[in-house]
Amino acid sequence: FVPDERPSTLPPGVSTGLAWTESGGDVLTIEATRLPGGRGLRITGQIGKVMRESVKAAQSYVWSHAESLGIPPERFRDSGLHVHVPAGAVPKDGPSAGVALVSALTSLYRNVPLRRDTAMTGEITLSGLVLPIGGVKEKVLAAKRLGLGRVILPKANEKDLRDVPEAVRESLEIILADHLRDVLTAAFPPQ
Amino acid sequence: FVPDERPSTLPPGVSTGLAWTESGGDVLTIEATRLPGGRGLRITGQIGKVMRESVKAAQSYVWSHAESLGIPPERFRDSGLHVHVPAGAVPKDGPSAGVALVSALTSLYRNVPLRRDTAMTGEITLSGLVLPIGGVKEKVLAAKRLGLGRVILPKANEKDLRDVPEAVRESLEIILADHLRDVLTAAFPPQ
Amino acid sequence: FVPDERPSTLPPGVSTGLAWTESGGDVLTIEATRLPGGRGLRITGQIGKVMRESVKAAQSYVWSHAESLGIPPERFRDSGLHVHVPAGAVPKDGPSAGVALVSALTSLYRNVPLRRDTAMTGEITLSGLVLPIGGVKEKVLAAKRLGLGRVILPKANEKDLRDVPEAVRESLEIILADHLRDVLTAAFPPQ
Amino acid sequence: FVPDERPSTLPPGVSTGLAWTESGGDVLTIEATRLPGGRGLRITGQIGKVMRESVKAAQSYVWSHAESLGIPPERFRDSGLHVHVPAGAVPKDGPSAGVALVSALTSLYRNVPLRRDTAMTGEITLSGLVLPIGGVKEKVLAAKRLGLGRVILPKANEKDLRDVPEAVRESLEIILADHLRDVLTAAFPPQ
Amino acid sequence: FVPDERPSTLPPGVSTGLAWTESGGDVLTIEATRLPGGRGLRITGQIGKVMRESVKAAQSYVWSHAESLGIPPERFRDSGLHVHVPAGAVPKDGPSAGVALVSALTSLYRNVPLRRDTAMTGEITLSGLVLPIGGVKEKVLAAKRLGLGRVILPKANEKDLRDVPEAVRESLEIILADHLRDVLTAAFPPQ
Amino acid sequence: FVPDERPSTLPPGVSTGLAWTESGGDVLTIEATRLPGGRGLRITGQIGKVMRESVKAAQSYVWSHAESLGIPPERFRDSGLHVHVPAGAVPKDGPSAGVALVSALTSLYRNVPLRRDTAMTGEITLSGLVLPIGGVKEKVLAAKRLGLGRVILPKANEKDLRDVPEAVRESLEIILADHLRDVLTAAFPPQ
Ligand SMILES: [Ca+2]
Ligand SMILES: [Ca+2]
Ligand SMILES: [Ca+2]
Ligand SMILES: [Ca+2]
Ligand SMILES: [Ca+2]
Ligand SMILES: [Ca+2]
Ligand SMILES: [Ca+2]
Ligand SMILES: [Ca+2]
Ligand SMILES: [Ca+2]
Ligand SMILES: [Ca+2]
Ligand SMILES: [Ca+2]
Ligand SMILES: [Ca+2]
Repeated sequence: FVPDERPSTLPPGVSTGLAWTESGGDVLTIEATRLPGGRGLRITGQIGKVMRESVKAAQSYVWSHAESLGIPPERFRDSGLHVHVPAGAVPKDGPSAGVALVSALTSLYRNVPLRRDTAMTGEITLSGLVLPIGGVKEKVLAAKRLGLGRVILPKANEKDLRDVPEAVRESLEIILADHLRDVLTAAFPPQ
Repeated sequence: FVPDERPSTLPPGVSTGLAWTESGGDVLTIEATRLPGGRGLRITGQIGKVMRESVKAAQSYVWSHAESLGIPPERFRDSGLHVHVPAGAVPKDGPSAGVALVSALTSLYRNVPLRRDTAMTGEITLSGLVLPIGGVKEKVLAAKRLGLGRVILPKANEKDLRDVPEAVRESLEIILADHLRDVLTAAFPPQ
Repeated sequence: FVPDERPSTLPPGVSTGLAWTESGGDVLTIEATRLPGGRGLRITGQIGKVMRESVKAAQSYVWSHAESLGIPPERFRDSGLHVHVPAGAVPKDGPSAGVALVSALTSLYRNVPLRRDTAMTGEITLSGLVLPIGGVKEKVLAAKRLGLGRVILPKANEKDLRDVPEAVRESLEIILADHLRDVLTAAFPPQ
Repeated sequence: FVPDERPSTLPPGVSTGLAWTESGGDVLTIEATRLPGGRGLRITGQIGKVMRESVKAAQSYVWSHAESLGIPPERFRDSGLHVHVPAGAVPKDGPSAGVALVSALTSLYRNVPLRRDTAMTGEITLSGLVLPIGGVKEKVLAAKRLGLGRVILPKANEKDLRDVPEAVRESLEIILADHLRDVLTAAFPPQ
Repeated sequence: FVPDERPSTLPPGVSTGLAWTESGGDVLTIEATRLPGGRGLRITGQIGKVMRESVKAAQSYVWSHAESLGIPPERFRDSGLHVHVPAGAVPKDGPSAGVALVSALTSLYRNVPLRRDTAMTGEITLSGLVLPIGGVKEKVLAAKRLGLGRVILPKANEKDLRDVPEAVRESLEIILADHLRDVLTAAFPPQ
Repeated sequence: FVPDERPSTLPPGVSTGLAWTESGGDVLTIEATRLPGGRGLRITGQIGKVMRESVKAAQSYVWSHAESLGIPPERFRDSGLHVHVPAGAVPKDGPSAGVALVSALTSLYRNVPLRRDTAMTGEITLSGLVLPIGGVKEKVLAAKRLGLGRVILPKANEKDLRDVPEAVRESLEIILADHLRDVLTAAFPPQ
């Protein structure tokens, strides 16, 4: 889905993922919001079983690393969380939204917006490792097509960049990450 | 469903959506009510999976933006919410009731009625974006047929208005919205 | 189901609905009881999905209109609710028990019995509208057959009374209602 | 199921129902026990959907009539309830255990044993009505065969006694009940 | 399942049941543990629906008879319970583990170990009756084969001992029980 | 799954299991993290029914043996637990991860890392027994292939080591365990 008019700033809690669909790569917006005084985790956007587990893993990572991420830990107790991935009627699945989910949640709980020019893809683990994903070529081309200038990829996918046309590759800043620390450093604007 | 006798004022918590059915467009009433001292979210009216997620997204949007919407935030903690979409035995689904759901909930929690002359359709996101929907022609014709003078549509559906007969188009006030702020401004009576 | 010996007074929380079955119309008793110190909503009597939603809509209507219905609002917080529709092994479904459910719950929470001579049918909405239902002829004939002298029908079903034999129609008091206020006025004995 | 050695007194919370199985009538023991400090309702014994609803109706009847049944109302809040129907691997269903369930629960909460010589069958409603059931002949014969001297039946089943051989009928005390008050009067020993 | 090295003492909360499998009888270890500060009941070991109900019946029996079993009643409120039946990947079902479950739970809550030389089988009821089970011959032979010297059986299964070879029968101490009191007296070491 | 760059220290809460897949043996990373102020148990990584029960058994073992394992018991009440097994989209099942799960949880709650050079496999019971598993040869070869120098196996699998080539067997330190005490002694670095 492509909003017809990009808002001038990315709101806190929103990140830009990359999806691999039957018709090629696409950009996937991740939205997260807190429900003050609420409880639990709402996941919407026709999310499949594997991606639903990615949302839980992302939340657990941010929750259990709150202190080192600069997040007041009580935020997890005093509010519910809703993660939505538009468009609402399009089924989505797979583990590769992990890094975009962690970025969205970190942005939400820090209340600091992410860079608008950066798309990202990669599976995560609870320890913060970034695992390789599929569809690198299609995802990078989708980021380029939609005018995004930076792409964060799993380090273990470095070899797949050979499949991306050199002109595209050189027109983009590509960040290779093997840990969520690298992802978050690249995803937030320089302080 | 068409009530045989339109009540003279639209009660707080009620909005007018537009549905796209097999037999053409139709008006869809959204009803929301608070359950004082209760908890959780009741959704009735034979609502399908995608529309059920729209209800949750609408509630989360209003909840997380309570302050800027002029809603006392404790209203979300001290009462349950019931959203019903008559007629009770007709299955309904799809994401396009999003804007009507947000309007109904904002009206409910503000305790301020919406305009009676205005129908609306559009998918929503947690960030407040209004995404395009299908069946614009049929929905606009249904609004006209039922005597409604104003229709709120997603800005991204502007091009679909070409399919609506010029006479109909000119007899209606059509509001194009790309953000829920635009929708709510148009949905409530001028202050 | 027809009790072999009608109790001399209708207990608070009991109403008389009308059902449309394969073998014609029938009278449907609705029973509601409070569970002091309990929580939640029990629904029994082999109730299908649509009728189960009717029970929730009826409860929400009475709950959210407690004050104007003369019901102490804390009654909803300090007790559970059980709605049963005998006979226990006969499956039941459909939205038309709505008005009988609202009447039973209002009677229960007010602790005031309903009229014994009155049967009723009609779908409800959270706003209190009474929507049309099917099987008017069969339901009116069933009420007559079982010796009930008054029938409450949705106003939008007025035209269906043409199908009822004139002799039957004239031997009954028929109340047409388009709002639950009309239903409750007719369902309770005059004060 | 038939215990090989009948205990000399029936423990509080135990009643004797009558079941109608493919191979004829049989006696069905109902066991209820309180779980002090617990919550909720456990139902075991491979109980089907209709019978499970009967258990809930029986509990609700006793709960909502606690005062008139001589039961301290706090007993429902300060303990969970377990209803078991041996034998544990035999599937059971149907509404006809209603009166035996109400008797068992009343015995449990009053902490007073029921008569050992009395079997009973009948559907119940939340208002206390006793509705007719099937298999009267087979059930009465089963009670006789197992040496029980008294049988409580729904009044509406009186006509079915014609099918029971006169010698059996006259050797038993048969109590016809149309309300749970009649059932409980007959089920407990004279005070 | 047979542990390769029998621990020198049976830990509190562990009992020895007897199962009837397609390939003959086998010994079934029941393990129960308390989760301090937890809630609810965990059942693992690929336990089927009937056996799962047996676990609940066993817990309810011990819970509701805590006082007479010498168990501080608050133990049921201040801890969760986990019942596991190794081996974890082998499906198990049926009601005959009832007496072994009650023995394990009584041992757990009393914190007193059961005799190591005793296997047991029998269905239970909430009143403490021990009901007959199947596979007596195979189960007794399994106990013998695994070197256990005592077997507790339901009294109603006495007749099935005819099928057990006399030499086996006479080499074992066989306890016939019709009530859980008999089972527990035999299952614990003499005081 | 094999991380492209092994982190220099194994974080607390992470253990190395061994899996038996269709294509041979493989190393399985187990990750556990605490959710401060949360509740309950999250299990992700497309975990099947048997393995899900293993996670519960592992948690219950560590919980009920907290004191002897040197873990402050309040840690189980004041935090939720998330267990994840990457890769997130690969289905996993079976009981053999038990010892790796207990090791991960003990490491997490003690906040002490496990040895990086040690892989382990074995089913567990609530009493702490280590039961035999399948695929010993494939699992040992996988550990060797991935450069791990030590393998913990169930004692009851000792005979299966005959199938492992002698050169491999002698190049590894193989620990045979029949109780979780043996496993934990071998899994943590010498103090
Ligand atoms: Ca993705
Ligand atoms: Ca994916
Ligand atoms: Ca790195
Ligand atoms: Ca729609
Ligand atoms: Ca705008
Ligand atoms: Ca109906
Ligand atoms: Ca009216
Ligand atoms: Ca009577
Ligand atoms: Ca069994
Ligand atoms: Ca005895
Ligand atoms: Ca395994
Ligand atoms: Ca050992």
